[in-house]
Amino acid sequence: MAGIKRIIEENDTRAGKAFDLFIQFLIFVSLITFSIETFPDLSDKTRALLRKIEIATVSIFTVEYVLRLAVADRRVRFAFSFFGIIDLLAILPFYVSVGIDARSVRVFRLLRLFRIFKVVRYSKAIQRFHRALLIAKEELVLFGTTALMVLFLAAAGIHHFEHEVQPDQFRSVFHSLWWATVSLTTVGYGDVVPKTTGGRIFTFFVLVIGMGVISALTGIVSSALTKARGLELNNDDHTSTT
Amino acid sequence: MAGIKRIIEENDTRAGKAFDLFIQFLIFVSLITFSIETFPDLSDKTRALLRKIEIATVSIFTVEYVLRLAVADRRVRFAFSFFGIIDLLAILPFYVSVGIDARSVRVFRLLRLFRIFKVVRYSKAIQRFHRALLIAKEELVLFGTTALMVLFLAAAGIHHFEHEVQPDQFRSVFHSLWWATVSLTTVGYGDVVPKTTGGRIFTFFVLVIGMGVISALTGIVSSALTKARGLELNNDDHTSTT
Amino acid sequence: MAGIKRIIEENDTRAGKAFDLFIQFLIFVSLITFSIETFPDLSDKTRALLRKIEIATVSIFTVEYVLRLAVADRRVRFAFSFFGIIDLLAILPFYVSVGIDARSVRVFRLLRLFRIFKVVRYSKAIQRFHRALLIAKEELVLFGTTALMVLFLAAAGIHHFEHEVQPDQFRSVFHSLWWATVSLTTVGYGDVVPKTTGGRIFTFFVLVIGMGVISALTGIVSSALTKARGLELNNDDHTSTT
Amino acid sequence: MAGIKRIIEENDTRAGKAFDLFIQFLIFVSLITFSIETFPDLSDKTRALLRKIEIATVSIFTVEYVLRLAVADRRVRFAFSFFGIIDLLAILPFYVSVGIDARSVRVFRLLRLFRIFKVVRYSKAIQRFHRALLIAKEELVLFGTTALMVLFLAAAGIHHFEHEVQPDQFRSVFHSLWWATVSLTTVGYGDVVPKTTGGRIFTFFVLVIGMGVISALTGIVSSALTKARGLELNNDDHTSTT
Repeated sequence: MAGIKRIIEENDTRAGKAFDLFIQFLIFVSLITFSIETFPDLSDKTRALLRKIEIATVSIFTVEYVLRLAVADRRVRFAFSFFGIIDLLAILPFYVSVGIDARSVRVFRLLRLFRIFKVVRYSKAIQRFHRALLIAKEELVLFGTTALMVLFLAAAGIHHFEHEVQPDQFRSVFHSLWWATVSLTTVGYGDVVPKTTGGRIFTFFVLVIGMGVISALTGIVSSALTKARGLELNNDDHTSTT
Repeated sequence: MAGIKRIIEENDTRAGKAFDLFIQFLIFVSLITFSIETFPDLSDKTRALLRKIEIATVSIFTVEYVLRLAVADRRVRFAFSFFGIIDLLAILPFYVSVGIDARSVRVFRLLRLFRIFKVVRYSKAIQRFHRALLIAKEELVLFGTTALMVLFLAAAGIHHFEHEVQPDQFRSVFHSLWWATVSLTTVGYGDVVPKTTGGRIFTFFVLVIGMGVISALTGIVSSALTKARGLELNNDDHTSTT
Repeated sequence: MAGIKRIIEENDTRAGKAFDLFIQFLIFVSLITFSIETFPDLSDKTRALLRKIEIATVSIFTVEYVLRLAVADRRVRFAFSFFGIIDLLAILPFYVSVGIDARSVRVFRLLRLFRIFKVVRYSKAIQRFHRALLIAKEELVLFGTTALMVLFLAAAGIHHFEHEVQPDQFRSVFHSLWWATVSLTTVGYGDVVPKTTGGRIFTFFVLVIGMGVISALTGIVSSALTKARGLELNNDDHTSTT
Repeated sequence: MAGIKRIIEENDTRAGKAFDLFIQFLIFVSLITFSIETFPDLSDKTRALLRKIEIATVSIFTVEYVLRLAVADRRVRFAFSFFGIIDLLAILPFYVSVGIDARSVRVFRLLRLFRIFKVVRYSKAIQRFHRALLIAKEELVLFGTTALMVLFLAAAGIHHFEHEVQPDQFRSVFHSLWWATVSLTTVGYGDVVPKTTGGRIFTFFVLVIGMGVISALTGIVSSALTKARGLELNNDDHTSTT
């Protein structure tokens, strides 16, 4: 049991690494089959094959989940941890869909996508990023609030200028939010475009502010990462000086 | 009175925090109703309900404004401060629209949006950002001037190349500014696109410069934030050394 | 003469500042009239007025140029300096167009735009930016070369994938450069879009690389500005320590 | 032989620099002719001329390759080095296409593009960039994995929302990846745009995350470059202090 625990929970042994790679490979297979299933014109033969692969991967994921639960030091804590819930959500839709009619649980399929987050578990570099996020937390909250405010003001403003000329595209402030989102992120699909002179001048100011907001976001992340590195650097310096 | 003053102006007591949250909730409600009102096909019943909510929120905002004015140490100074004016602008359109025909004051509704800035009042993180802006002030002014110059040159240039082939889209330099804005911010709706070879080669240079301008903006904000943090870091260092 | 020299060349006296502001105002007026002239349907009255403003501004610019030349310590050096040439280019097209038929010198009008650069003369902050550019010079050259290489490879690749399906949009590698420019700068007008599966997969890799190139550009500028500030910071530190 | 070796492998002598410039000029010529050849309506005369230039450049490149192989200290090592393979790939397609029918080897032409990388060989600044990439390696891998995960989740999500309304554009998760790529890189061609309310709200979250991913990428590169410079700066400081 202790051996299995080491294989499952740690990845510093050869068996642990192999187990991790195997699970990641299965997640990859599972995502590919999920994607292929969405093709509208699949032959029955292909569907049957995909179903078999599905049963196989879910079976292994189930065994993995039960094993993780079994070897966990605190089982209840694991069951309600982020990855405990992800692991459960990754297999639950399959069992739910067995009992009920396939059509009505189609939406559950999407839950299967959470399997993708399992990949993250094995990453160590995420901790450094996490530290940078903590450093920039306050600014990111401020930035997020400001961004949402700008988004709303942009939608309300463009609605004022454009809703009489383009009543369909800019029906209400809520409809205008689509334009605001697409414009402020500089995606600019071009499906909804201001046509009045007032709307275009307003868009100029919105885009200038949008550029400011995006560059502020980049600046926050960049300076937070620089500080996180700077702290490491300083520590190195101190030790090298001593 | 001193008790009310503490509740309204400070947010370190439980009552003060509750008051702030209540006002923020009302601002949120006010914005939602403003947005819903813009739907063109609302039933009379919904309109009546929205009107009632409107009266309720404006009443409370009015009481809040009068209280803030009453407890302020310097009443005239508060009345002409940024948030004093915002608070007044947030309630004034309602009273103005009561006397006059509803249609003609529709534009005043937009002023109500300034209520959104009330949320900012309670943020402390904005001070750090403000410091970074002061550090980068000189560069931001230079960048702003350069960006406007590039924008104008882009509009004048593309007008020269395209106005004969696309006389509607590129009617004058002012009309071409719309294209310049959309292109330099990399939004690119696609409603106005250069078609001549000369115009496309010119666009290449405009976009390269546009990328430079945007990355300079990001770089300025980023380096200013890094310096602002660096100053804090240095101060921490000095104190820890002492 | 020495008094005029001080007014024209320096801006630390009240008269010098007023002169600078006056010239900047005239540049602004000159650009506005240039833009208004591009409207296709102007009345003769408006054209006459614009012509008068044009004559007035060019006259003053000519006097300014002659004065600058007269008070310059080294006249030949000023005449061939950047701003000396700009100043000349700003007034020359007017005199050239008087002699020749108006239509054929329309293109000379664009040269007048260089007046805009006169504004830059008075900026001091540009020196700091100039220093940052010198720091990042090597990287910017490398980045520029890489960006051009990626641009060319993107055009050659998309031509290979798309020119059979869309022979008009992707006629040759040169025509495909338009798509590559618009895509790599993330503008994405949408006038030229890959339709084949191969082209779309290729676009995925091109866009990923494009994001990398843009973020590298931003990173270069940002880190150069941070270093430029860091040097200043260090100097301040040294002086404060001493 | 030692003289030729110095000319070919080093670029600190006048002859070496001239040789390098000559080769770079030939690469440039080769790329221009490659591009011109893609025009569909070339006259036979032009084709013949291009063919001659092609034969000339490939001949010189062949001589260069043979010389490099001849003067190399370890011939096998050079033959299998990055630039050894590039040099071979740059000339091989020409000789292959001589033997076989021209049409079937058209795809080999693209390999000739690798010649472009020869320019990089002569760049020294690339080493600094390489160092920055090593510093940020871990974060870039994490970022890459996260970006691919977000891309897949975006495609799966938008397929769920849109495939019933727009069965052609969002046929399967694989087809939806095209939309996800174009949107997350903020290119936004506008050929595939979500139309359902659910899809648009989902797009909002996807774009917000996309902005975060792009700004994280920029931040990683920027902070890595800053650290790389910081290390240099520190070294300078230490030497100047000593």
